[in-house]
Amino acid sequence: MKEFEFIEIASKIFRKKKAEVIAGAGDDDCAVIKLGEKFLLLTTDSLHEKADFPPAMLPAEMGHMAIAVNLSDLAGSGAKPEYFLFTISLREGIDEEFFSQVLKGIKEVADRYNVDVVGGDIDFGDELYISGFAAGFAEKFVLQAGAKPGDRVWITGTTGKAQLALEMLLSGNERKEVPFIQNLLTPEAKVEEGLKASAFANSMTDISDSLAISLNLIAKKSRVRIEISEDLLDLSELTAFVDYEKALELFLYGGGDFELVFTAGNEGLEVGAEIGKVEEGDGVILKRKTGERAKIHFRGYSHF
Amino acid sequence: MKEFEFIEIASKIFRKKKAEVIAGAGDDDCAVIKLGEKFLLLTTDSLHEKADFPPAMLPAEMGHMAIAVNLSDLAGSGAKPEYFLFTISLREGIDEEFFSQVLKGIKEVADRYNVDVVGGDIDFGDELYISGFAAGFAEKFVLQAGAKPGDRVWITGTTGKAQLALEMLLSGNERKEVPFIQNLLTPEAKVEEGLKASAFANSMTDISDSLAISLNLIAKKSRVRIEISEDLLDLSELTAFVDYEKALELFLYGGGDFELVFTAGNEGLEVGAEIGKVEEGDGVILKRKTGERAKIHFRGYSHF
Repeated sequence: MKEFEFIEIASKIFRKKKAEVIAGAGDDDCAVIKLGEKFLLLTTDSLHEKADFPPAMLPAEMGHMAIAVNLSDLAGSGAKPEYFLFTISLREGIDEEFFSQVLKGIKEVADRYNVDVVGGDIDFGDELYISGFAAGFAEKFVLQAGAKPGDRVWITGTTGKAQLALEMLLSGNERKEVPFIQNLLTPEAKVEEGLKASAFANSMTDISDSLAISLNLIAKKSRVRIEISEDLLDLSELTAFVDYEKALELFLYGGGDFELVFTAGNEGLEVGAEIGKVEEGDGVILKRKTGERAKIHFRGYSHF
Repeated sequence: MKEFEFIEIASKIFRKKKAEVIAGAGDDDCAVIKLGEKFLLLTTDSLHEKADFPPAMLPAEMGHMAIAVNLSDLAGSGAKPEYFLFTISLREGIDEEFFSQVLKGIKEVADRYNVDVVGGDIDFGDELYISGFAAGFAEKFVLQAGAKPGDRVWITGTTGKAQLALEMLLSGNERKEVPFIQNLLTPEAKVEEGLKASAFANSMTDISDSLAISLNLIAKKSRVRIEISEDLLDLSELTAFVDYEKALELFLYGGGDFELVFTAGNEGLEVGAEIGKVEEGDGVILKRKTGERAKIHFRGYSHF
């Protein structure tokens, strides 16, 4: 993945230096800054029309996605989002109505989470491109680093639905016939779930690329081994539409659903479903029902 | 200006609603948020290769510009910048060395102002495009609204230099022969000047498009009339290279120098040069040496 090589270069150049910066560039989903008794979390994420917007996506859904992807970063760190800013680069053919719809999509999501859109910049280029910046606060934040041997692994919902919807759309189905189309076009940031989980989670992240990538990031940064148990997985939502092995592939490697995955000690949890455990060691493993163990690779679909 | 029509649409959709948001989308250079005893200021600004990067600009200078334009927004509101994030969209032909140089340009400016670069996102598209997002704090912020009849108008330096450099570059001069080339390629955000001025200024803004646009924004938002006195202007830096009327045109309508303009009561000032005064009424006027009064229009060069 070329993107990860460029990220590596950036992380080396931008080492954090201020004492109050707990997580800086490349460290986690968000920057985490200590501000008195609480924490300011900042994040940014950008979307390109060609790479990130599936066919049939409406302008309002593009706006939805542009803010949701940022709120999901904050959710995955246990922060409550408060403020959003964006830059938008418009191409020829985008008129005031299209533009208004994109903005209304942003606004609708912002309102739902009580986020104020406080600034933006508008530009003109060759491609529709939206960069979002979100700021939020946390009393207790959760990083990808922090998983402990003995933790159990939870997920807030079934991943793979957005990927399934995309594949059905690309193979010619009308959007109204496609299951889980809302996971693909208007995924919801799991803000409430992130806030609840942050009370007891030792590590957490959102799942934008794939569960496999998120688990590998947690394992690597926490210096632990994660074992996912096939026995624990409920793939029935997916197997209603595809065979079991395909469902498992979608669940592990499909992107775009914006669920959260976190690890925590075995306390009374009310968020998500258990899917595995944390052990000493490294890597991410799937324990099949047969007892066999298979590596879960650091890969996801480049979704669109 | 099509951009301003789109901004109008955005400002209508994104009305601020939270009590602590003092300035929201479209209100000013930055969003201003009350945070206990101090203020959090957030801003975003984006740059396109084709529209915003002049010929002969080096990759490190692109990085410089991408952060400086954001720090200048904070400076124009009297904030001390603290954190910076960016998204960068890379086109084909940008290799790791080019990318590293852009980042080093960002880093160099960040270090100079003791700003931490705490996050970013990397993407691939048709054009090099950088969106910056800066956060800072102020004890006392200054908006464009706030100029009072009786105030005098100050500017931190001579505007028009960047525009002059651009015109000389475009007419075939080598960059090493062009005066004020650093104003065009590596303009400095006037952070110290903004902090000093914020102690007594009633209104302030940075000058990115042109002095004319900045003055018109202050006049409109403050519901006052601004009169610039030609008698007060020192255009000698410009008249060393062009005739007087051209120098005056560059001073009023040239963009890109990142100076600040502010209004304040006639106290003991140590920042900038006086260029005019604030009166009751509306509009922005140039009082010529002859005594004639000419309108200063809401326009700037679309610089590059």
